[in-house]
Order: sequence, then structure tokens, then C-alpha cells
Amino acid sequence: MYKSVHGGDIYSEKNSSLGKNIVDYSANVNPLGLPASVKEAIKSSIKNCVNYPDPLCRELIEKLAKYLNIKKEYLFISNGAADVLFKLALTVKPGRAVLLAPTFSDYEKALRTVDCKFTYYELQEEKNFIAGHDLLKKINSRVDMVVVCNPNNPTGKLIDEDLLLEVLEKCCRTGTKLLLDECFMDFVDGDKAYSLCSKLDKYHNLIILKAFTKTYAMPGLRLGYCMTSDVSLIKELHENGQDWNVSIPAQAAGIAALDEENYLLASKELIRVERQYLTAQLEGLGAKTFGSEANYIFFKLEKPENLAELLRKHGFLIRECDNYHNLGPTYYRIAVKTRYTNRALIKAIKEVRRNALVIGNY
Amino acid sequence: MYKSVHGGDIYSEKNSSLGKNIVDYSANVNPLGLPASVKEAIKSSIKNCVNYPDPLCRELIEKLAKYLNIKKEYLFISNGAADVLFKLALTVKPGRAVLLAPTFSDYEKALRTVDCKFTYYELQEEKNFIAGHDLLKKINSRVDMVVVCNPNNPTGKLIDEDLLLEVLEKCCRTGTKLLLDECFMDFVDGDKAYSLCSKLDKYHNLIILKAFTKTYAMPGLRLGYCMTSDVSLIKELHENGQDWNVSIPAQAAGIAALDEENYLLASKELIRVERQYLTAQLEGLGAKTFGSEANYIFFKLEKPENLAELLRKHGFLIRECDNYHNLGPTYYRIAVKTRYTNRALIKAIKEVRRNALVIGNY
Repeated sequence: MYKSVHGGDIYSEKNSSLGKNIVDYSANVNPLGLPASVKEAIKSSIKNCVNYPDPLCRELIEKLAKYLNIKKEYLFISNGAADVLFKLALTVKPGRAVLLAPTFSDYEKALRTVDCKFTYYELQEEKNFIAGHDLLKKINSRVDMVVVCNPNNPTGKLIDEDLLLEVLEKCCRTGTKLLLDECFMDFVDGDKAYSLCSKLDKYHNLIILKAFTKTYAMPGLRLGYCMTSDVSLIKELHENGQDWNVSIPAQAAGIAALDEENYLLASKELIRVERQYLTAQLEGLGAKTFGSEANYIFFKLEKPENLAELLRKHGFLIRECDNYHNLGPTYYRIAVKTRYTNRALIKAIKEVRRNALVIGNY
Repeated sequence: MYKSVHGGDIYSEKNSSLGKNIVDYSANVNPLGLPASVKEAIKSSIKNCVNYPDPLCRELIEKLAKYLNIKKEYLFISNGAADVLFKLALTVKPGRAVLLAPTFSDYEKALRTVDCKFTYYELQEEKNFIAGHDLLKKINSRVDMVVVCNPNNPTGKLIDEDLLLEVLEKCCRTGTKLLLDECFMDFVDGDKAYSLCSKLDKYHNLIILKAFTKTYAMPGLRLGYCMTSDVSLIKELHENGQDWNVSIPAQAAGIAALDEENYLLASKELIRVERQYLTAQLEGLGAKTFGSEANYIFFKLEKPENLAELLRKHGFLIRECDNYHNLGPTYYRIAVKTRYTNRALIKAIKEVRRNALVIGNY
């Protein structure tokens, strides 16, 4: 039977002794929850679900293009960013791709559907999992696609902007597409955040991936998109899938979400403060953190070895990172949430470490 | 720019002089609209959209399997039946497929994404567009997939059950998959309706496609599925796409819809009566109908030539069928709706015919 490789499974827990009281730190979603206006928009859209959705998402695309300050012809919207990945794989059909390791596993899963081969650029723990200039050496004319997640998942680290521009430029020269995933950029502090949106006009080989999922806490609705000035690719993306890939509630939610400027500012501030809090607490507990810039924290903790399982019994799901390329056990990722639950999580980690000590796990 | 080949486009009309008063006869959706319980279920699910959906749709699959009286391992659910088609194409990768002509265009669109070649079995107008035994001759070991839509779209005609069983048996012998689309079977009268669900256990080469879309009037939500006893194919379908392909509102809607037995009975009865009414009226206007068994009527009307365009000006969208293989202009398809709008549509057809006569179009 099929098994998901992603984070915690709240649906399995539903029927466990923990029931619905589980707190899911394995999914990196805005802790402020769905904006009220978005909930209202979904509710109002229900009556329209007797119609097929607009295949071209015209109202949403119009607004999103203005919001991003790009041409609306550059946008392709689908059933979540993960769905866009699989459609991109089918459409671009890269024969060889360069992937960072560790990184989000669905790049590889999607590209495998078209028998893509991979070259991994292994991020070094000693360098805080930040890509260096040697990444450029991996790019040549036999590489059809380079995938960069910025900030990277699970590490939360940004790639240096100048290096990324060099990667883009080199990809352009070698006829390589650069797939840049900016899904978590909205949670990066203002002075560090940057997007390559403004480079789309010049670089037809640039594809930027983005989602509403994390930013507006709506993973259950499915709404993601990509942007490229290669408009023939946009057309092919439509041709390679069904017409009605974005549901009416998702389109309505997206339209409403784009007005939520204050919500975004408040989210960023909350994440900034709580990321600092969690990082300090984790370090205090002997964990090694790596300076995440995103709405999740990646850390290494040697003991207890079965941290995730022990925390599960305390009602917390965290992301074990041992199934990422180039990572083993003892690496974990947790979402940044509000102080109340963050404090409870830290308390639980302290407790499982103490208990492990008592029963001689150390 | 990408253009959809499907029915009328209510979203373009929104900004036309007709505004929102357009009645869409081009989409074949249950005219009773969304059941109240389904609306309520969607509303209640909004708060859960801060979570990722269950990748395995466990609650829905549990209930659906019981409803269909099949094993739950046989089910794969996705973002509408059309999305299932594209995932099936990518997973099965048929080199050659037999398609009926005319039939729903997305079979071909989906299979083209994996460079499938086609053999068409042309349905004859003289035979009321019903497939005959010569269909069997098209099936051989070089054919990887046969697609049968039952009742067929756009014709509304059922294939003879004995012939379909022979097709299934022959496909089994030649190592060919039979993809059977039963999306419109819920609207066929009780004494004529039949499903091959009970054959799934015996025939691993049988894949049945079905949707909630038409039956429960929820095309805007996206919820469709396929069934097969080839459980390794089910696993591969999961592997070839994202984990979260069914939104939380869609899963909730599906779970609620399966309790709507009376709604289904009432729908079937309404469709039966109104199909008769529309058929008689169309015949009275000189149209040729072909005895549809579905919730839409396929007809041929020679004059006026621009019927769809003239009706649009009266506020009705109908499906021109000239872009189907093996059909030309003068063929149309309309949905079966409630008496009030059906009467208005017939009145409009009478009017455009009268006007066309006056200005000498005849």
C-alpha cells in the first residue's frame, strides 16, 4: 500500500488514544490560521460549486499578477504547489536535474515520473547547510533543470542572492531551467527576504514556484502556482492536465487572501519573535540549530534517539528528517507556532529528555 | 494562449451584456443542485483547511467502498475524474488506445501527454451511435487500452451489456486495459442502468471511472475516482502525483453526499420526465434525437446553422459538438434541467428558428 513520506499524519492519530488533541508541528503552516475574510470567501463560494471552475482562473490571475507585479500571462495556477511540480515534470520532461540535498522530497518524486536522472549537490553541515559557489560546477549543458528551494526546506536557510543570480545566469547559458521554490519566502524577515520575480522578464529559463498554502494557512484547500515568462510552457502546462484543476473555493480563497496585508505583516512578526524563542530554547536544551529564516526550525539533537516517537506520546507531531537525502537520524524539523503551544512543546521536549535520562537512555 | 475545448464559458459571459443571467445548458450537472447536507458539510470543513488533507482519503474511501460494495483497496480518489484520467495516462502509459468517436475529448487529451497513438471506432449515425460487435475487431495485443464511456458523452447512448462483457473478456485475453467511464450512469433509468463494478474482482484489467461532480452537482469542488482490482496500479497512481490531491472540502462533501439516497432517486425521476419532455419538444421542432439515456440530450438540427450563437444571445449556452471526432456542425448537446428552464430554452429555440426564417436564413 502507498505510504506518504511527508510529515506527521494527524489522520492516523485521530483514531489513536491521543485523539484530536494532537498538535502538528510537522506541517509548516501560518500559525495565525485562515484569515476571517478567506473563511467568508470560501463560505460564499459554496453556492457556486454547481458550476465548473474557471479553467483560466481569470479573476484570481488578474489580481495575483497585479499583486506580484508580473504579467498575467506568466501565471499557471493549480491544485497546490505540489501539483504544479508534477505538471512541470510532465511538461518539461527533464532528462537530468540537479537537486540540493537535503531538500523537499517532492521535486524528486515529481521528476521520477518522467524518468529524470539526478545529480545531488550535498549541503554541508559544517557550512550550515548553505550552498556555496561549487554549486555552479554542477551546472552544464547536460543538465536540464536545477531546483533551488529558497529558503530551503527542511533547513530554513537562504541561498546567497548573488550566487543565485550566478546560478540563473549560468543556467541561461547552458539551456537549463532553474526551478526556484519561493513557497516559504513570505515568512523571511523583510531585510533578508528577496524574490527573483523581477528577473522573469529577462530569463525565460526561470520558473518560480509559490503557494497560498503556507502563507495563508490553507493547505486543506490546495492552491499553488508557478510563474515564467516562457508563455509556451504555460500553454503546455494547461494542455498536459485537466481544465478544471483549481476548485471554486480555492479560487475564491486566493482572491480574498491577496487583500490580507496586515495579516501577513502580523504573521511575519509573530514568526520572527517565536523563531527566536524556539531557537534559544532548543539551543538551551543542547540541540544544534542552523539559523532558519523560515517559519520552521531545523535542528539536530542526539538524545533521546526516539525523540519524535516520545513527543508523539505527549501529543506533538514533529518531522523526523532521516528520510531526506544526506541526512540521518537525530535531525528534526518543527514548525514555528504561537507562544502557548511553543512553550508546551519545549516543556514536553524537556520532559522526554529527563525521563530518558532517568531510565538510563543516556 | 490556451483555449478550452469544452462547453460554454460562463466566466466569459459574466462580463458580456448577458451578465450573470446566463443559463448553462452545456454542462451536464444534476439540476437539483448541491444537496443541503453537502453544503453544510463543506461549510463545517472550512475550519479544518488549516491542515493538509488526508492523502489516503481514509474516511471517504471507507464509506465509498461500502457504498459501491467493493474493496477499499480498489479505490483511488483525485481532484475530479478528469484529473484521474491524466494520472491514469501517466501511470499506464498506453502506446496505443482504441477510442470511440465521438466521445469525451479528455481521454485523448490525457493520453496524448504520454504520446499514445489512437485507433478510432467510428459510431454510425444510422445505428443511433451505438457500438456494434465490430468494435471487438479493433482489440488486439497491440492495443494497450480501450476506452468506453457508458452512457457515452455526448450521445447519451449505452453500450449493450453483453457486448461490453465481450469487450472486457477480449481485452483480458489481449493484455489490454479497459477504461470504463460510468460518470453518467447514475442518471440512467433503473431498468436500463448497469455497472461493471461486480466484475472488478475477476478482471484486473478493468478500470472504472466515476465522479461526484455530475451526480451531486458539485463540479466546482473537484471529486472523482477510479476503481480497479489491480492494486499495484493504485499504488503507482499515488506515486505519480502529489499526496494531497483531494481538498478537505471535497472529501467532506463526498462523505456527506453518499447518504443522499432520496436526492438520487428524485434526481433520476426528474431527469427521466424532463428528458422525455425535451426530447419530444426537440423532435417537434424538427431536430433529430437519438434516444439519450443520460442527463443530457444529443441532437441534430440543420437550421439555423448558428444555433448556439443565436441561443447565447437569448441567454442560453449549449454545447456545439462540431469539435468532436466524427461529428460536424449541426450536432448539439444540451443538459436536462428543470421544467421552468427547459420550457424557456425550447421557447428560445422556437424564436431563433422563427427569426432565422423571417430574415431568410432558410
